Amino acid sequence: MAVYTHVPAEEIDAFLTRYDAGRLVSAKGIAEGVENSNYLLETTGADGTRHRYILTLYEKRVDEADLPFFMDLLDHLGARGCLVPRFIADRDGKRLQQLSGRPACLIEFLTGISVTEPTPGQARAAGVALGELHRAALGFASERRNALDIAGWHDLAAKCGDDFDQIQPGLAARVAQELAFLDAHWPADLPRSVIHADLFPDNVLMLGEDVTGLIDFYFSCTDIRAYDLAVTHSAWCFSNDGAIWFGARGAAIGAGYRQAHGLSAAECAAFPILCRGAALRFLLTRAYDWINTPADALVTRKDPLAYLRRLDFYAQAEPATLLGA
Amino acid sequence: MAVYTHVPAEEIDAFLTRYDAGRLVSAKGIAEGVENSNYLLETTGADGTRHRYILTLYEKRVDEADLPFFMDLLDHLGARGCLVPRFIADRDGKRLQQLSGRPACLIEFLTGISVTEPTPGQARAAGVALGELHRAALGFASERRNALDIAGWHDLAAKCGDDFDQIQPGLAARVAQELAFLDAHWPADLPRSVIHADLFPDNVLMLGEDVTGLIDFYFSCTDIRAYDLAVTHSAWCFSNDGAIWFGARGAAIGAGYRQAHGLSAAECAAFPILCRGAALRFLLTRAYDWINTPADALVTRKDPLAYLRRLDFYAQAEPATLLGA
Repeated sequence: MAVYTHVPAEEIDAFLTRYDAGRLVSAKGIAEGVENSNYLLETTGADGTRHRYILTLYEKRVDEADLPFFMDLLDHLGARGCLVPRFIADRDGKRLQQLSGRPACLIEFLTGISVTEPTPGQARAAGVALGELHRAALGFASERRNALDIAGWHDLAAKCGDDFDQIQPGLAARVAQELAFLDAHWPADLPRSVIHADLFPDNVLMLGEDVTGLIDFYFSCTDIRAYDLAVTHSAWCFSNDGAIWFGARGAAIGAGYRQAHGLSAAECAAFPILCRGAALRFLLTRAYDWINTPADALVTRKDPLAYLRRLDFYAQAEPATLLGA
Repeated sequence: MAVYTHVPAEEIDAFLTRYDAGRLVSAKGIAEGVENSNYLLETTGADGTRHRYILTLYEKRVDEADLPFFMDLLDHLGARGCLVPRFIADRDGKRLQQLSGRPACLIEFLTGISVTEPTPGQARAAGVALGELHRAALGFASERRNALDIAGWHDLAAKCGDDFDQIQPGLAARVAQELAFLDAHWPADLPRSVIHADLFPDNVLMLGEDVTGLIDFYFSCTDIRAYDLAVTHSAWCFSNDGAIWFGARGAAIGAGYRQAHGLSAAECAAFPILCRGAALRFLLTRAYDWINTPADALVTRKDPLAYLRRLDFYAQAEPATLLGA
């Protein structure tokens, strides 16, 4: 995570004149999000008030053609009370611009910090926020295919091939075995909706135990709704390396989600399978990045084995314990 | 430029409780400065006011033993009206802390943007700010050796050795020739003082044509005062690649510096030599980084030849033109 495209401050200043967003007084490249370039801007309005915005330039991982889907989704969710950052329109109503040769958008800034070791209260709040997001997503008409669905996992696994075993001997066989299991058991008839698909603690802004923002919707897509809860569960309920499972966080996420949205008996029954899928999805993308990132590059490679440990946990866990009572 | 040490938001929140600095409401890793990790923090005071700070964790390039020098210098300059960021003391008066295993400081945040293509008015303002800095530095008693002085250049050149010619055939000989020239001609008796030594446009915050801050003093040291003007000149008066010299900027910096501080006849006479030294200093550090950074690393390598072009310019320039009349 870095700033990939350097935009001269003069260009940002000129860019802002398209908007009713005040004059630029500060611009700092920030190191976060998926592979985009992000600037935290501060402006002064005509009345002297200070405003902050995020300026995002989209690099190769986000397809420009998907941006209208993300924009419409955040409008839809924001209009229904979700704390999500809105894309800001310029005076001509245009939200998607070009800057330094990249697609670029001005986005609402939300305060809040991302926790690293969630308390059960924070995990519960995340579960509530996810449930509210799913409730607000009802009626959103656009669809976007999940490129990282079970077919996408097969593709990724094929690309990694024999290189899996460079990460850990036997990993290729373990992945093949898990894919076969998921092919046989992946639920076909659970409710689908727009999902966030990447609700890590990084992407939840909080103040104390209150959620102040859900961000980074660039993996959002249409898929099994309860799979989103499984992704969130796998991201929030373990030590970073996957070695320790924090049951109280899982129970808290489950309680929060049930309170805000509810979970059917069929979703509960399938939940361990969905969690295995979530763990495999991050194992595969991390393994692919691991294999394709030079060891001496100044980008932190995330350990794929942290998700193999989660996968092993989910494969053996007592289903009833995952989300508490 | 990236965030090298990731600090969990909870640790930043706990760190801030040592200070009268409000409660953390936002923390963003920012990509700037020398090789430190920097976070832009926002806090809320007890009265609801918002404050911003920079949290810096010092990585290997800054020696912890030098930090008191930098802190005292910025206190000295700030007390004399220079717009420099102050190191903030905690309730016990302590400014140097440890965080995530690194020396860490909380630093005042200054608004303003760094220009990429300075107008003559902006260049003049930078000249004024440098002159005022030198005036304010009078009476600052501490000294710090410039590790990148002429002896340091010899060391760097020796470390690069034959690898120079990988960058451009003949570069090793050109560097050796320039070092011999500077050994013979480097002025011995010009006034010395504390200098910034790295006053690139990146390190000058501006709003319009007003300087709002001088930042990044981590190369500041004791050396020939007019050498600081030469460094600034080499950084501000050329196209990025060194191919185009902007005479109006040089004249503007000269006029601003003369207005705020003044330049003696001896300093004027030595100025072309000082500029050759400044160009060689950045040529050498960039060449060293170029040789020692893998080509596929995700850090931008700065082109050493951009400073060879400046060096060639200074070696041939009409001395009187450099700073205008």
